[in-house]
Amino acid sequence: MDKKQIQERGSFMTDKKVIRQRLRMLRTAMREAGVDYYLIPTADYHNSEYVSDYFKAREFLSGFTGSNGTLVVSQEEAGLWTDGRYFVQAQKELEDTGIQLFRMQEAGVPDIPDYLRRHMWEGQRLGFDGRTVTARFGKQLETALSEKQINIVFERDLVDTIWQERPSFPCSRAETVPVQYCGLSVAEKLSAVRNKMKEEKASALFISRLDDLMWLFNLRGNDVAYNPVLMSYGFLTEKEAYIFLQARSLQRETLESMKEAGVVIRDYFSIIPFLREYFAPGPAKRGILFYDDRNVSYTMYRLFWAYGNCREGSSPVEALKAVKTETELSYIRKIYLKDSIAVTKFIYWLKQTAGKEELTEYDAARYLDSLRQGIPEFLDVSFPTISAYKENAAMMHYEATEKDAASLSAEGMLLADSGGQYLGGTTDVTRTVILGEIPQEVKERFTAVATGMLRLAGARFLHGCTGRNLDILARGPLWDLGMDYKCGTGHGVGYMLNVHEGPQNIRWRYEKNVPEAVLEAGMIVTDEPGVYLEDRYGIRTENVLEVREAFRTGDGQFMEFAPLTWVPIDLDGILPRQMPEREREALNGYHREVYEKISPYLTEEERAWLQEATREV
Amino acid sequence: MDKKQIQERGSFMTDKKVIRQRLRMLRTAMREAGVDYYLIPTADYHNSEYVSDYFKAREFLSGFTGSNGTLVVSQEEAGLWTDGRYFVQAQKELEDTGIQLFRMQEAGVPDIPDYLRRHMWEGQRLGFDGRTVTARFGKQLETALSEKQINIVFERDLVDTIWQERPSFPCSRAETVPVQYCGLSVAEKLSAVRNKMKEEKASALFISRLDDLMWLFNLRGNDVAYNPVLMSYGFLTEKEAYIFLQARSLQRETLESMKEAGVVIRDYFSIIPFLREYFAPGPAKRGILFYDDRNVSYTMYRLFWAYGNCREGSSPVEALKAVKTETELSYIRKIYLKDSIAVTKFIYWLKQTAGKEELTEYDAARYLDSLRQGIPEFLDVSFPTISAYKENAAMMHYEATEKDAASLSAEGMLLADSGGQYLGGTTDVTRTVILGEIPQEVKERFTAVATGMLRLAGARFLHGCTGRNLDILARGPLWDLGMDYKCGTGHGVGYMLNVHEGPQNIRWRYEKNVPEAVLEAGMIVTDEPGVYLEDRYGIRTENVLEVREAFRTGDGQFMEFAPLTWVPIDLDGILPRQMPEREREALNGYHREVYEKISPYLTEEERAWLQEATREV
Repeated sequence: MDKKQIQERGSFMTDKKVIRQRLRMLRTAMREAGVDYYLIPTADYHNSEYVSDYFKAREFLSGFTGSNGTLVVSQEEAGLWTDGRYFVQAQKELEDTGIQLFRMQEAGVPDIPDYLRRHMWEGQRLGFDGRTVTARFGKQLETALSEKQINIVFERDLVDTIWQERPSFPCSRAETVPVQYCGLSVAEKLSAVRNKMKEEKASALFISRLDDLMWLFNLRGNDVAYNPVLMSYGFLTEKEAYIFLQARSLQRETLESMKEAGVVIRDYFSIIPFLREYFAPGPAKRGILFYDDRNVSYTMYRLFWAYGNCREGSSPVEALKAVKTETELSYIRKIYLKDSIAVTKFIYWLKQTAGKEELTEYDAARYLDSLRQGIPEFLDVSFPTISAYKENAAMMHYEATEKDAASLSAEGMLLADSGGQYLGGTTDVTRTVILGEIPQEVKERFTAVATGMLRLAGARFLHGCTGRNLDILARGPLWDLGMDYKCGTGHGVGYMLNVHEGPQNIRWRYEKNVPEAVLEAGMIVTDEPGVYLEDRYGIRTENVLEVREAFRTGDGQFMEFAPLTWVPIDLDGILPRQMPEREREALNGYHREVYEKISPYLTEEERAWLQEATREV
Repeated sequence: MDKKQIQERGSFMTDKKVIRQRLRMLRTAMREAGVDYYLIPTADYHNSEYVSDYFKAREFLSGFTGSNGTLVVSQEEAGLWTDGRYFVQAQKELEDTGIQLFRMQEAGVPDIPDYLRRHMWEGQRLGFDGRTVTARFGKQLETALSEKQINIVFERDLVDTIWQERPSFPCSRAETVPVQYCGLSVAEKLSAVRNKMKEEKASALFISRLDDLMWLFNLRGNDVAYNPVLMSYGFLTEKEAYIFLQARSLQRETLESMKEAGVVIRDYFSIIPFLREYFAPGPAKRGILFYDDRNVSYTMYRLFWAYGNCREGSSPVEALKAVKTETELSYIRKIYLKDSIAVTKFIYWLKQTAGKEELTEYDAARYLDSLRQGIPEFLDVSFPTISAYKENAAMMHYEATEKDAASLSAEGMLLADSGGQYLGGTTDVTRTVILGEIPQEVKERFTAVATGMLRLAGARFLHGCTGRNLDILARGPLWDLGMDYKCGTGHGVGYMLNVHEGPQNIRWRYEKNVPEAVLEAGMIVTDEPGVYLEDRYGIRTENVLEVREAFRTGDGQFMEFAPLTWVPIDLDGILPRQMPEREREALNGYHREVYEKISPYLTEEERAWLQEATREV
């Protein structure tokens, strides 16, 4: 699944009167703090993909329950900015609250910096909790408001003073990842990071990306939904290593493993005083501080630049984390096989059941989840399971609820995009399952999607290629039909970590600030072209691929992909004559392997079905 | 042909004693000028692809006749840096001159900045003619030498004082291009450039690329071999436009057309005093000066930065020039057809003659040139015709001389890469012609090259793609065989201008400072994958393609290529079963069109042959 495909779980519907009262309380707090406009984004302190309840201040104050939105409040006005996925829902939830809806990206709708620049007066003060605003957005606000000499007050969380029953700050148990699961000790990883710091001539490295921190310190937690991470910060110098954690999360095991690696543990909330103290001797004494500007908060950014001697760049930890060790890969290959068995069993069950028994998208998702839960290493799903029938599959972010889920019948297609968190890896796989006869035109597109997926998977390329060089292999068959999908073709996948990670990806369009990394042996990426036709249907076929060395010739080191996913592609959607010979052979070869690898773990009925489902075409 | 494929014509072998004497004279001049080290590159004042005799100071002083080399002289030492193409030749030509050969890129060989940094003493002075050194290389020298407080003296051409019989400064007749040939008047072009200047917030634009200047002022000349350009500079402000030309080159026609467009003509050699005077009022009065840092000389760079308010970037003129007008395209299509007829006739002749009559590579090249000369619009070849037999074709830059040319027999392959300058366009085309039976393995590679060429030519892609997105289409069939060609797949082509132009290109590897432009309708690019096996053979198949809009759908504007070249691809090298169906169909479709377009212009024998040569496979 792609980031856009995610919608958040959980919400609390609130009475409009309560909302109006909360806004009044915020306005009182603003007057007391001398703040004219107050901004509340939807983010935690680490720019995580999901926010836990503690960070749902925007929802608390506006009643809007969507996963994306920013609230701006002044004494007279209040506005909420959200994207196209939520226009209808936000309209309903904001009714009678006095909050105006700003439909992002629509013609004539100002963005937030622009709105503030126009509405605020010379010399007024804009407030927000700088820990929940990215450095990048904060800089945009600075630029927009500098003309009017507007001051930014970022040190205080005003919502905290009025949110009586605020959920507690996320704090799960810290778990240590034994070296036999990841192949590298914390000491070895620290040494690799320090080598990268030397290359950058950095004396210190600040780390705030939670999955980077988990990887570096061989820790895991449960502070963010679907992401097995702990709220934490990290700070390295040539000699010292600090991790900032909540005392309550610590186990004796953690204390021991950190001590062994020479890592000093400090309290999570002491990061700012710690940095102030560290910087006190002044730039000349301290050398260059390096940090990743895509993730750091505005609060940290201001602190760093007050200090003065910084360099922004791509996190060296991210780059190291992306290349999986041989130990990790051996676990990953095993767990992807188990995950593929579950998904294959799901497809069999779905094909047998849909149209015969009462069944909704929601039921299908729960059945798939239950198959994963049956795997001994299972810990959690890696994102909310997408089970989208017919036109619902045209929405990349669709998540069926028990109440509103569509009923499945013996027609159309169900798109199932899902993954698991396991002891031994993080998975992600999509198959579009055909439940009845589909028109020829749909089959053509289904075939083009499969062709693209297989063409990229079968690429042979020189070392040095990035996803930009390869994207057209997956996208070309759709471009030939005059179609495009509005997202990347693939993303990196974590190891017992976030299902989305960088720096590698498969995309065609150059975007400033989106990193582009050379595909190195040991990286893993998804390969997921698709077709999305609004109000009609959606098709996506996704395998996860491992990058590996193919062979070296006089012309250089050639690379290739090897699939990690072993799930049949629904032949009911394939027009073999429309597939170029190479991809048809690749499909047959892939299906032969699927049968070989998966059939030993199936019942007799399932096995008979799989034989047919993986037949040569 | 690619830039690397070019070798220069003309040289003057010189007695070693004469060389040693010239070096003594230079050393005397250096002592008088207070210069400790003097550097002489191979370049004119505009970083042109070829240098005329006036600029062959390095050859004059060293006796080395290769097209690439830089000489460094001190009182005690002298060194010449050149690349792998010339190691053997340079070794021979430098013998007994006291000049040491530095083999560029070889292990342990310092580059020039490094050499100077190690050899020069604190406070010494390095001299060169700053007009012949690019700003980029000059900056590298500055960086390398700043530690040792070495001064750079760039204002004097010391060679001029000792070069008694220096060839005259190139000065050909200025020719005006009538609007009916290019579609846009000078006034219209100036207005388009000024719009781009506004976007860049630039008050002034300095132009030193000769083909940019020719395009902008609708002029042509003959001051650089194969490039129909005049030695010139340009300077634009919002209101004024200046062109700097040599008075002797001017025709009444030029004077009139410049006057009509409101362009002021100044003397070519007055550019530096002109700029000094222009800048005199100071930065605040003058606004931002914009220039293209890839082409400007070190002298200009120093002058601009003394002035202070500059911005470096890609030339707006280059970007405008690359998109051909409908008028230009209609001439280009016609001239490519005529050029294709000549090349097709050449292939027929070659296939009939080789092995039957005495014939060398050189003879073949001259015969091909003579066929082009028969076209009424012919002006010149657009680069030295490459006619390379067997293993000679493995050298991308090979140029046969009358004396050393290989004899052709009824075996192996001849690679012919050639093009013409015409009234109505500039052409470039490569075919590899099979003169006898070739092994199966060679046919496999020949087929892979043709497959790559056709796959790129048949691409359909969303607007926004650059060459980096598409390169794998041409290169992929070779990568599948574990082979690669060490150059780009394609380059832009001028209109009655340089055969190599930017900013678009087809390459896969990201290179800092190599521009990467979106492929726009009206651009033209070459498509020339190849195989180069040292001491064995070379294969290259090159068509020139026009970029055009294909269609627009809800998903965006789709683009495609249309061929401009109509020359058969030798079916004696093609294994139809090894070609994917799509490319085999494309080949057959292309050959049908070749026959339709070319056959009306052939003799009966030629036509019968062409029918067979374009048969369906």
